[in-house]
Amino acid sequence: MSFEFLIENRAGTARAGRLKTPHGEVETPVFMPVGTVASVKGVAQDVLEELDVEILLGNTYHLYLRPGVEQVRKLGGLHRFMSWTRAILTDSGGFQVFSLNDLRKVSEEGVMFRSHLDGSSHFFSPESAMEAQIGLGADIIMAFDECTEYPAEPERVRASMELTLRWAERSRKYFEEHKEEVPWENAALADKNVRPTQALFGIVQGGMDLALRRESAERTREIGFPGYAIGGLSVGEPRNVTREIVEATVEHLPAGQPRYLMGVGTPEEIVEYANLGIDMMDCVLPTRAARHGLLFTSEGKISIKQAQYAGDEAPLDPICGCRVCGRYSRAYLRHLYASNEILAQVLNTIHNLSFYLDTMRAVRHSISLGRGARSLSEVWSRAKP
Amino acid sequence: MSFEFLIENRAGTARAGRLKTPHGEVETPVFMPVGTVASVKGVAQDVLEELDVEILLGNTYHLYLRPGVEQVRKLGGLHRFMSWTRAILTDSGGFQVFSLNDLRKVSEEGVMFRSHLDGSSHFFSPESAMEAQIGLGADIIMAFDECTEYPAEPERVRASMELTLRWAERSRKYFEEHKEEVPWENAALADKNVRPTQALFGIVQGGMDLALRRESAERTREIGFPGYAIGGLSVGEPRNVTREIVEATVEHLPAGQPRYLMGVGTPEEIVEYANLGIDMMDCVLPTRAARHGLLFTSEGKISIKQAQYAGDEAPLDPICGCRVCGRYSRAYLRHLYASNEILAQVLNTIHNLSFYLDTMRAVRHSISLGRGARSLSEVWSRAKP
Repeated sequence: MSFEFLIENRAGTARAGRLKTPHGEVETPVFMPVGTVASVKGVAQDVLEELDVEILLGNTYHLYLRPGVEQVRKLGGLHRFMSWTRAILTDSGGFQVFSLNDLRKVSEEGVMFRSHLDGSSHFFSPESAMEAQIGLGADIIMAFDECTEYPAEPERVRASMELTLRWAERSRKYFEEHKEEVPWENAALADKNVRPTQALFGIVQGGMDLALRRESAERTREIGFPGYAIGGLSVGEPRNVTREIVEATVEHLPAGQPRYLMGVGTPEEIVEYANLGIDMMDCVLPTRAARHGLLFTSEGKISIKQAQYAGDEAPLDPICGCRVCGRYSRAYLRHLYASNEILAQVLNTIHNLSFYLDTMRAVRHSISLGRGARSLSEVWSRAKP
Repeated sequence: MSFEFLIENRAGTARAGRLKTPHGEVETPVFMPVGTVASVKGVAQDVLEELDVEILLGNTYHLYLRPGVEQVRKLGGLHRFMSWTRAILTDSGGFQVFSLNDLRKVSEEGVMFRSHLDGSSHFFSPESAMEAQIGLGADIIMAFDECTEYPAEPERVRASMELTLRWAERSRKYFEEHKEEVPWENAALADKNVRPTQALFGIVQGGMDLALRRESAERTREIGFPGYAIGGLSVGEPRNVTREIVEATVEHLPAGQPRYLMGVGTPEEIVEYANLGIDMMDCVLPTRAARHGLLFTSEGKISIKQAQYAGDEAPLDPICGCRVCGRYSRAYLRHLYASNEILAQVLNTIHNLSFYLDTMRAVRHSISLGRGARSLSEVWSRAKP
């Protein structure tokens, strides 16, 4: 068995467990830091290990363009290429084709798009997106989907959902026929006695329509995947709508398989979605916000550029155990940011990731105690001395 | 005694020893990484410790402008501000006033200059430069000097040298009267039983004129400092001239006191100057070159942006023990650089500093064996298996 999901504890709709992947176990609910082009911006792999990151996300669209799938495949896949022995998930490229390309052309066959780097033309189909993800060799890969724009007319949302379902079937078919081509070395695998393959997850679409979300969930289940993602959210809709869709969709996903909510969220949101029974999340927010000086703490958000921190000798977060809070003052971090020093981006990113990972650790602990956590303030008010 | 210099071994003109500073010992000859605004660009302090950096350089000009001397002083000085418990040296600001200001106005009293950040007017005198460096609280501070431009007429070089000598006297006088104002906490000091002060070094000028260099050295010695720097080099003159001036000046410096050659150099140069009896050097080259993808190795220079490294699985330097060479391939480093990832700057800088520090470690070892090393190739050919 290449991939397993074990639920170990429940608290209401929330559950805590572990994903077993060919590159190690991942405790869930999990927040996956984004390493767009095989690097979490500014953070070396040993620091990610120290933060207890068990799974990273890579973006197929970006890696396909640079350094290219064939290059990564020849170098043994993403794990070996970036010297990361733990689990990796790649998205299908569908979301970036949607968000970075105003000129994309969608057909039954796939999507024609232009590189945001040099304007060159490229084509992704379910088959080529699978080929790319098999070549990159993440542990968990995603079916090729169309991310429906928001807002959209009802008939457009249905047509897009139907297209995603047809692409899901094609994705699965290509994957089953080619999954042995993954470029893993036996030596790098968690279980050296089996020859594992990747796990392909399906993606539920259906816009902001509860009935279509239910239909998408049921029909994606019929195709059959070891895990299911909820896609097409965080595309501009109000947050209460996102929550409503997540809550309604989760009900129609299999209870025993992992549920991945793509592209969320704030610290508040990751706690709430874990409480609704989501097992996996990813978002650029902690890393991108860090590079803009926005830091998350147990006492709320801090914009470190503000002059009030220039003489502040306290750590960013008094109850944070990360290497940044353990060593540096707000005054120093403010100075680094104001001086446009690279180290500001490095240290801010380490702290924000630490905060997200600590938050999810606290959520898992709450679930293991059978009570769960409904909100971020509930998580952190408990942690205070 | 706040400051001591012990010479432990000699090989020809070269010597190996240790500086004892209030914030720990420094093995010499030493290369001091440059942390312009209280950060070695991209490298966290724990990594510098791991690299065995024993002394850092900070730039008074930059720190004076941002975050400001008073801010640093209130926060306990540079060591506490940047969470660095080992030794620090600050320059006097004279070189940056010279190199970053086309509009500076030099008078007997001091230098009027404009901030490169916002164009605001500022004035440095020997007294205010000492006040700034006492407030910053480095272990070793530098007399305020005029860095003579190159080329310059003989009378201009003499006048500039004479001005630097008068400023050296004023620097020393102000320092002696105010040295107790250093903002160190007893708890952070290497020897908690004495109340130490900083060490003020004099700077030898005299352009490219051997007689003036000799006169500057002798008259600076007469003023009396615990260490002497050679300034005004690496300002555009041919390298053989630099070497000639260094060689001639060293002869006129006291044998038992540390000699600091400011602003050099390449890996080849730091070995050669150590061989001539220089004990301390600093340069932005390893850190700045790293940010531009130029990497130093035991096999020569590598421009990591080149396509030839895209599929190269070897480490940067096969005999380097740094955390970068121990974990990442040239292919990955090339990808990070080509993708403009922050991690490229971080990892490249760590490697280049490691190479410089390893080089100096090998030079010290050679001196301790009584043979010394005349060239970089001699250093690294011995290190090969």
